[in-house]
Amino acid sequence: MTSPTILSAEFQQRLDSTRNAMQAKGIDLLLAFSTESEPAYVRYYSDYWPSFETAGILIAGNGNDSLLIGPESRTFAAARSKMAKIIRMMDFRESSQPSYPGSALASWDEVLNEYRPKRLGIAGWHLIPHAIFENIRNAFPGMEIVNADEVVRSIMLSKSPAELACLREAARISELGFKAVLESIHEGMTEVQLCGIATEAMLASGAEATGYPIWCCSGPNSTQAISRPTHRKVQAGEVVHFSIGAKVAGYSASVGRPVVLGECPADLQKFLQVGLDAMEMTIDSMRAGSISGEVAKKVHGWITEQGYGDTILYGPAHGCGQMECEFPFLESSSTFALEENMAFMVDVFLAGESSGFRWEDGIIVRQGAAEELSSFGRKLNILEI
Amino acid sequence: MTSPTILSAEFQQRLDSTRNAMQAKGIDLLLAFSTESEPAYVRYYSDYWPSFETAGILIAGNGNDSLLIGPESRTFAAARSKMAKIIRMMDFRESSQPSYPGSALASWDEVLNEYRPKRLGIAGWHLIPHAIFENIRNAFPGMEIVNADEVVRSIMLSKSPAELACLREAARISELGFKAVLESIHEGMTEVQLCGIATEAMLASGAEATGYPIWCCSGPNSTQAISRPTHRKVQAGEVVHFSIGAKVAGYSASVGRPVVLGECPADLQKFLQVGLDAMEMTIDSMRAGSISGEVAKKVHGWITEQGYGDTILYGPAHGCGQMECEFPFLESSSTFALEENMAFMVDVFLAGESSGFRWEDGIIVRQGAAEELSSFGRKLNILEI
Repeated sequence: MTSPTILSAEFQQRLDSTRNAMQAKGIDLLLAFSTESEPAYVRYYSDYWPSFETAGILIAGNGNDSLLIGPESRTFAAARSKMAKIIRMMDFRESSQPSYPGSALASWDEVLNEYRPKRLGIAGWHLIPHAIFENIRNAFPGMEIVNADEVVRSIMLSKSPAELACLREAARISELGFKAVLESIHEGMTEVQLCGIATEAMLASGAEATGYPIWCCSGPNSTQAISRPTHRKVQAGEVVHFSIGAKVAGYSASVGRPVVLGECPADLQKFLQVGLDAMEMTIDSMRAGSISGEVAKKVHGWITEQGYGDTILYGPAHGCGQMECEFPFLESSSTFALEENMAFMVDVFLAGESSGFRWEDGIIVRQGAAEELSSFGRKLNILEI
Repeated sequence: MTSPTILSAEFQQRLDSTRNAMQAKGIDLLLAFSTESEPAYVRYYSDYWPSFETAGILIAGNGNDSLLIGPESRTFAAARSKMAKIIRMMDFRESSQPSYPGSALASWDEVLNEYRPKRLGIAGWHLIPHAIFENIRNAFPGMEIVNADEVVRSIMLSKSPAELACLREAARISELGFKAVLESIHEGMTEVQLCGIATEAMLASGAEATGYPIWCCSGPNSTQAISRPTHRKVQAGEVVHFSIGAKVAGYSASVGRPVVLGECPADLQKFLQVGLDAMEMTIDSMRAGSISGEVAKKVHGWITEQGYGDTILYGPAHGCGQMECEFPFLESSSTFALEENMAFMVDVFLAGESSGFRWEDGIIVRQGAAEELSSFGRKLNILEI
């Protein structure tokens, strides 16, 4: 089977659509900024994703687009980028801040004087470093600088058939990672070790990377909504909860599952079941035309009726795509309507004082029932020991 | 064997030393900023390292220090942080930018009015987002804001016995990752798959994570100084080059090695040997009192004499510690003198038009010969097939 991918024509289409959206906002040059851990925007437009260094994309009204990279990534970027014009700049260097004596690097002055923008939009507004922002502003003082996140987000929101194929494959491989864990988990293994097994399985099965720093958190650690694995050994009768995700051609999915080894205390089993039922209710409520905030209120209302209202932290869903967690977030204050071909991770995380868990799976919004990214299914994983 | 770690007293010592260095610069409040892929400063002071979200550390002249985290990391940070005071703020949320209705989050106004700084130093100046910088400036307009990277770097430069123990263990485990690759590599395996094997081996052997997004790059990809693994299948007679690193208690090391399967063309073997000789020359030149730039000029001069001057991109060494690549960079323009207990990765990366490679190992600067982080040794890995 050939792994799904995004073709060059689709990258070009994204650039052209963005150009149109820029025009509507009076933005004649757009800078999209990305980092090693936040590669979304640069990858979306070029297929390049930085490591150690950062990167940017310049989208111009006249079609003279550029990929901006750091000093050490010339051959790396050339091998990856769908964008032919690549410019090396000091401002995208790694954080140890070498001087690279003898390297020919472009200045912002040179770059911006080629474009002479009146209104520069920056996408990744919450990410772009102050130091780079100031260098840009000083290099071309006359221009206005505005937040252009909404321009890019409006283009990224609806997923194409190729993007959905990548997400389905990422979900399939994420599940293989979780299956590898289910096959090998036993008391005394460490959280870190279990993550290693999931990672190896996903990278042997077609993932290009994990979709994010995956984790296993067990016992008292299970109350962590975001976590990183530790050397704690997993034990019987406690929640061992997994967030495992693969990345395929830039698209990240995730599988969230609690596991219990041996006997599951009755109160814990009830808590896990409330989460699973909330998960099914959320998926069932997410249809084209549904109002996002209404979905969240219904699900959180039901969880509260069951007596677990104080275990809610967020959610119960968020966009997915280039990032495993991507705008828009579906929460009680959300007002957007769900539209066909939006992709979400349904993410029910609940945590009490001593135990917590996450159920997570991906869906595609449809006119009727949501299409799940995979057919893996959900059940209480209470494993015999 | 117990894995090395950093004790609470050492974290307190770091804070107190930083407070002294702040006083010398007239800085009464220091904000150190970190992200998922650049966790160095926050981890150095608190042992917490963010994922998805970002984080900050406030170090105050009066000892009232705080860890600043995002809305979803309360239990995660509480389980990790050596710093007792933890403040949740919207500005450290993840990039999908949820609203978290109902969550009680502190504002910059509240936080800064508690400290009332005259001169705020920011460490991680090249990282801190413009949006956060502006929120800080607007919340407490009277204060001066200055770049405090040098303050923190001056404290981090000399490694303690506990830090060196973590680096040695990270190097030992990195080598186990590379050994696992050597034992399983064969023609037709993919670059990504080989990285999965290395990762699994390191996470099963005491690493808490990889030290960075590790890679294997082969054939034409081997010219990439920074890279990410692809689905390319490795072949006989070409360079397959590995950058593999483990993280232990926050400290990252790396092993860089070229491998050739089957017969190695004579010109390639000569090129690899020049890199290996340059590696040994660099290590031999790095002694307490050596001037960094002189080491670089000597090594790059010798490589140039051998006819490979145009294959040099940077280096030949850089600091290591919390980041696998940490200040200071050792390059021909460097002027600092090497001091005992500085730790470096010696990193000889050379690339021609069609092939490149990296030799990389860690050292600790000593009065006489450098102490290598490990005893693994270096040789041309030309493997029978």
